[in-house]
Amino acid sequence: MPITLALDAMGGDYGPPVVAPAALALLARHPDLTLILVGQEEVVRAELARRHKGDHPRIVLKHASEVVGMADPPALAVRVKKDSSMRVAINLVKSGEANACVSAGNTGALMAIAHFVLKMLPGIERPAIVTSVPNLNGHVHLLDLGANIDCSPQQLLQFAIMGSILVTATEMKQRPTVGLLNVGTEAIKGNDLIKETSRLLQGSGLNYVGYVEGDAIYTGKIDIIVCNGFVGNVALKASEGLAQMVSHTLREAFNRSLFTRLSGLAARPVLTAFRKKVDHRRYNGASLIGLNGTVIKSHGSADIVAFGYAIEEAISEVMNAVPQHIHKELAPLYERPGL
Amino acid sequence: MPITLALDAMGGDYGPPVVAPAALALLARHPDLTLILVGQEEVVRAELARRHKGDHPRIVLKHASEVVGMADPPALAVRVKKDSSMRVAINLVKSGEANACVSAGNTGALMAIAHFVLKMLPGIERPAIVTSVPNLNGHVHLLDLGANIDCSPQQLLQFAIMGSILVTATEMKQRPTVGLLNVGTEAIKGNDLIKETSRLLQGSGLNYVGYVEGDAIYTGKIDIIVCNGFVGNVALKASEGLAQMVSHTLREAFNRSLFTRLSGLAARPVLTAFRKKVDHRRYNGASLIGLNGTVIKSHGSADIVAFGYAIEEAISEVMNAVPQHIHKELAPLYERPGL
Repeated sequence: MPITLALDAMGGDYGPPVVAPAALALLARHPDLTLILVGQEEVVRAELARRHKGDHPRIVLKHASEVVGMADPPALAVRVKKDSSMRVAINLVKSGEANACVSAGNTGALMAIAHFVLKMLPGIERPAIVTSVPNLNGHVHLLDLGANIDCSPQQLLQFAIMGSILVTATEMKQRPTVGLLNVGTEAIKGNDLIKETSRLLQGSGLNYVGYVEGDAIYTGKIDIIVCNGFVGNVALKASEGLAQMVSHTLREAFNRSLFTRLSGLAARPVLTAFRKKVDHRRYNGASLIGLNGTVIKSHGSADIVAFGYAIEEAISEVMNAVPQHIHKELAPLYERPGL
Repeated sequence: MPITLALDAMGGDYGPPVVAPAALALLARHPDLTLILVGQEEVVRAELARRHKGDHPRIVLKHASEVVGMADPPALAVRVKKDSSMRVAINLVKSGEANACVSAGNTGALMAIAHFVLKMLPGIERPAIVTSVPNLNGHVHLLDLGANIDCSPQQLLQFAIMGSILVTATEMKQRPTVGLLNVGTEAIKGNDLIKETSRLLQGSGLNYVGYVEGDAIYTGKIDIIVCNGFVGNVALKASEGLAQMVSHTLREAFNRSLFTRLSGLAARPVLTAFRKKVDHRRYNGASLIGLNGTVIKSHGSADIVAFGYAIEEAISEVMNAVPQHIHKELAPLYERPGL
């Protein structure tokens, strides 16, 4: 099926030097894919020219005169920078010219613009950021990851509903399990907000399994873990930091002496397989869920490989029609008593 | 220097089968140490008898008829179970019969009882849980880890002050650096509570470096990271889960075939050193800081080795007179303008 994606070519820590080569790599892998690169046209064109002779038949350049900075307040990004690469990329989703968009830019601005331009699906107050995290039992979908610092119990319930629909749509899994992140699994744990959320989840008809602790992200057999954006963001970034430390420590341990270097050589195929398995770049590409349209957020520091995975995530969500599924499923869910 | 510690022998997932052998191991390492094992005397005595012939000259048994359950509400533990092993162990600190106590029991109950019996140091509203987390640059002190789910900016400031004093006292480090955990490092990130906390920290006279993200726990060069107990608890437990997954994945990768098993054999010394470095048991033993006395919380699922490290932490804090330092340092800090 032909898919057209809009890429915010100016977003993230690197901009065109990451987005342009990632785009070329993905076009080579997906013959039905067309990519619209949105940004300062001369800069993007120069970056493409360094890596590809002549114009690529499936790349469209779309000029946008402004760039949203990583520290720009979301309100400024929405109200003032109306010709930013981020805004223009999202406009292309709104107009139907692109099936989805991908940006490595400022998360708060991306959420605010996407919310303003695309609007929420009925029954959802605010977008959430969701990503799949690799774990001992495959992976878990964790949300929210930073779009909403403070969340009401009703919002957390909406996250659980959206997460369930996402997992059912993309993984053909009926009644995926939902856990609520807390500081303990006993009923007395947590504050009033957590307890009220648990009560709502119990009455929701979802496959709610109760409270889970932080370690369940990696060792649990749960399909969806729900938390507010502050907690989810810290948990995910702490994990990234720990994974970096582990990889650094392992490399250092094998470099200590001639003997350890030789044993590292012997173990190299295993270590390479291991590193690939825990490489967080493979899990880059979080979805801004709850919107009338698919918007994928790449990590700001994503390299070419990582940004490529974010584009893959966009393709998968378009092929699985995630927003349409959420739209279709939400109405009957909201008619249940108690919601 | 002679040190006497009270151990809650009934606490944690295992109770006496972990506490008794850990106690014997630590007594063998520390000739000046005396341990009071508090709990159901017959059970503790039987457990000791299985591992040590005759009475140990530096073990004192102290009977306590009740046990605080892992799911007991803190209020019940304080008001009703007045003869619990946890309560009696803390009473021994209050009376001066023990220099500190160690428990692997219910965190909420431990905090409530310690707060009720020992009282807070002047200028501190509530105890915080702090532990040292190993990272790329040595380690970082992270607090709070779950004692306080919701924290005011004033409380977070108190955590920063206590953490700074702890690091100065135990590591002879003048003006240790303090970071505030947030969802981004830019000034616009975070909610009002975080921004107000940052303002207080800026005016505190502490060596405050600003916002840090979750990855800074493992990759940052900060001495103390401050956050509320919900966030700290999730970050720490998520890290434990990830470390478990890494260790499992690595073991599995080396067990896949005869070739990988042989290469694992070659790499064994390196892998053992690596595992030791990331073994979270070595960092077991969190301090309930801010109290008139030293109370160490062991992980509930601690094994014998891990519980031993919690006892070591108690010994170190007693030798460094941490509560006395906090007491001594707090008064002038609170006289600074703006606090």
